[in-house]
Amino acid sequence: MKIQVLLTGNEIMAGDIVDSNSTMMADQLGRHGWRIARKVTVGDELDVLVAEIRSQSAASDVLIINGGLGPTVDDLTAQALAAACERPLTLHPGAVAHLEAWCERRQIQSNEANRKQAILPEGCGILANDSGSAVGIHVELNGCQIYATPGVPSELRWMLRHEVLPDMLKRFPAGEVETRRLLVFGGGESTLQQLIHNQYPDWPESIELGFRASMPALEVKLTSRSADSAELDRWQQRLIDDIFQDTYIANAPGSLAQATIDALYREQLHVATAESCTGGMIASQLTDVPGASQVFEAGWVTYSNAMKQSQLGVAANDLDHFGAVSEPVAIAMAEGARANSGADISVAVTGIAGPDGGTEQKPVGTVWIALATTEVTHTYALRLPFERGLFRRWVSACCLDLIRRAALGLTLQPRYLARFRK
Amino acid sequence: MKIQVLLTGNEIMAGDIVDSNSTMMADQLGRHGWRIARKVTVGDELDVLVAEIRSQSAASDVLIINGGLGPTVDDLTAQALAAACERPLTLHPGAVAHLEAWCERRQIQSNEANRKQAILPEGCGILANDSGSAVGIHVELNGCQIYATPGVPSELRWMLRHEVLPDMLKRFPAGEVETRRLLVFGGGESTLQQLIHNQYPDWPESIELGFRASMPALEVKLTSRSADSAELDRWQQRLIDDIFQDTYIANAPGSLAQATIDALYREQLHVATAESCTGGMIASQLTDVPGASQVFEAGWVTYSNAMKQSQLGVAANDLDHFGAVSEPVAIAMAEGARANSGADISVAVTGIAGPDGGTEQKPVGTVWIALATTEVTHTYALRLPFERGLFRRWVSACCLDLIRRAALGLTLQPRYLARFRK
Repeated sequence: MKIQVLLTGNEIMAGDIVDSNSTMMADQLGRHGWRIARKVTVGDELDVLVAEIRSQSAASDVLIINGGLGPTVDDLTAQALAAACERPLTLHPGAVAHLEAWCERRQIQSNEANRKQAILPEGCGILANDSGSAVGIHVELNGCQIYATPGVPSELRWMLRHEVLPDMLKRFPAGEVETRRLLVFGGGESTLQQLIHNQYPDWPESIELGFRASMPALEVKLTSRSADSAELDRWQQRLIDDIFQDTYIANAPGSLAQATIDALYREQLHVATAESCTGGMIASQLTDVPGASQVFEAGWVTYSNAMKQSQLGVAANDLDHFGAVSEPVAIAMAEGARANSGADISVAVTGIAGPDGGTEQKPVGTVWIALATTEVTHTYALRLPFERGLFRRWVSACCLDLIRRAALGLTLQPRYLARFRK
Repeated sequence: MKIQVLLTGNEIMAGDIVDSNSTMMADQLGRHGWRIARKVTVGDELDVLVAEIRSQSAASDVLIINGGLGPTVDDLTAQALAAACERPLTLHPGAVAHLEAWCERRQIQSNEANRKQAILPEGCGILANDSGSAVGIHVELNGCQIYATPGVPSELRWMLRHEVLPDMLKRFPAGEVETRRLLVFGGGESTLQQLIHNQYPDWPESIELGFRASMPALEVKLTSRSADSAELDRWQQRLIDDIFQDTYIANAPGSLAQATIDALYREQLHVATAESCTGGMIASQLTDVPGASQVFEAGWVTYSNAMKQSQLGVAANDLDHFGAVSEPVAIAMAEGARANSGADISVAVTGIAGPDGGTEQKPVGTVWIALATTEVTHTYALRLPFERGLFRRWVSACCLDLIRRAALGLTLQPRYLARFRK
């Protein structure tokens, strides 16, 4: 079976956005053992689109079109499909019903612009869209199944999973492929690859190994084309036991924040955060997880010295003597947050995210982390050579991992921190 | 002039990496007024590559090939070019010299694997590579200039700027292009397009209008292919004055958070946040902006009722009587945050992000926002029909915009909130 993809949109061609949609498609198709053979990207020009649809459909079994379903004049997919199939455009009752329900949920009136999204090639099938105003389109041309999907990533993801793939699975035999995706935090790709290579000269050819950076975590993907679950399970377990150990976070889909919340929930522990340079990012990532309210007690974003004193009980003397970015201040913040909230575990961060504010002694990238539990308070002095955004993400990830470790009783001196020690 | 791009590589096709190289190309070409007309991506298969090179070169003036120049067996670009041009492969003296200099700088020996990178189509030109071991390739086929470039992004960037573009500029006339990107918050794409369409029947053909959702904000892009700055300025100003008005945030690059920080800084005002359902996201977005410490005072993430009472002074009675998601609680949170921090403006949020926790009276998506200034406290009862993640982003964006409006003295009853009023 041959699958092609046609991506449309001036904003992709102009370099305004990076195409991550075809990556998502390749990923979802890959779970059924299907690969994309060829991918063509063009701008929003009707004759170009029509020619591509004709030539791609003539050369493949499935053509997935992405983009161009929206309400604006440069959304041309329906028009191009109609021209390629030589069918007229008509108002599609199912699409109209979808649009009206969508408008009603948002309590807005449908207008001429968004009614355009219900004008489709005569006799086409429609693909449900659970969050957007435009339905997808399904037609057959030259014996090729064509699925037109929306450009908004969340809408595309839903439509692929609930509409396109189920239809494809009815029509075409799926390959047998099984994958495991292991989320790891604290190891680099090349180091891990080398370790695995050295440890397992007998790594089986039937299991393909892949790596994907999902900063600051890493996703390690095992793919078995013979779909041998037992063998996959065995090698996954060997990797976790021998190599990843306590840097293994969870199987995807998952996240460091989710694993942290899960660990707290399992141990029935509550957490609080006290943030300066991360500015609420740790609290925000934790509370992004559904059910976080069961374990997340409170967070403080104490940016100014005055707030560190009045809200968390940091001593004026320590601020004067050691500065805001210092071990005693980190300790006082963490312990203050724990005392204020009654949480079992708290984490505090004070550092210099940049681009300004660095000094010779405390350059940009310097950060103190304190982790307080009912028994003891640990501190960490790090220097992370990253720009502001990545610095904040890295520090937040380290803090989430330290909370996870404290909850699960794992070592609180993970190896990966060593490379960043001051 | 017609430019096409051919991207090669199994790792792009398998979805293991996202193609950001063609975005970089589009951006660099766009500065000279050039557009990529069509982009084809295929895996590492020799016959497929040869067929693509032949058909793309026959249909364009310039073909930029990216990837497949490396030392491994699946790097096939030189071989495919030789086959497409019907020339033999030979050891290229210039490429050998480059490779030897590269090995010497790294104090390594060249080996058979990397010597493969000097075996090129006979008579081709080479393109210097300032950091990698492989040179680029330049040949002419079917009257089309073909440039083969490396897949490593930093090498590609350098080669485009120093080799490919200078050669193209010698051969083809460059266009002049100028763009403006306006960030707008509070209007949907179809509504804005309709408004613009109705307001300006005389919209000039020389200015192209584009829209890009950067949820929850919207980017409106004006492109003048005649690079008429004065005309662009005039139409940008008309759009802002007549249509966008106070929903205009900033020109890109920029963000709602950046505009909010800028407004606070300009008016020398300080801000504090008190968050429940957004869990620190508002504080995190504000402090993501460099220099936020000049205006951001403090933030509280009071998830539990106990914390709302002890940290922000919410009355136990109000919590009992009206519940945590209520007007009196939102008001007390905002006023508590302002009183605790001495900030001029504070915002408070309490709502039900879901997926659980909704009731018949207060379903998932219900939220109360309070905005407190030195003079008055405004409240907003909204219902946002979004899933947890989007709900949190939308609520945060509304709060940032309300702070911005309060700082600038704009109306605190923006029209866009009306659609979400309970």
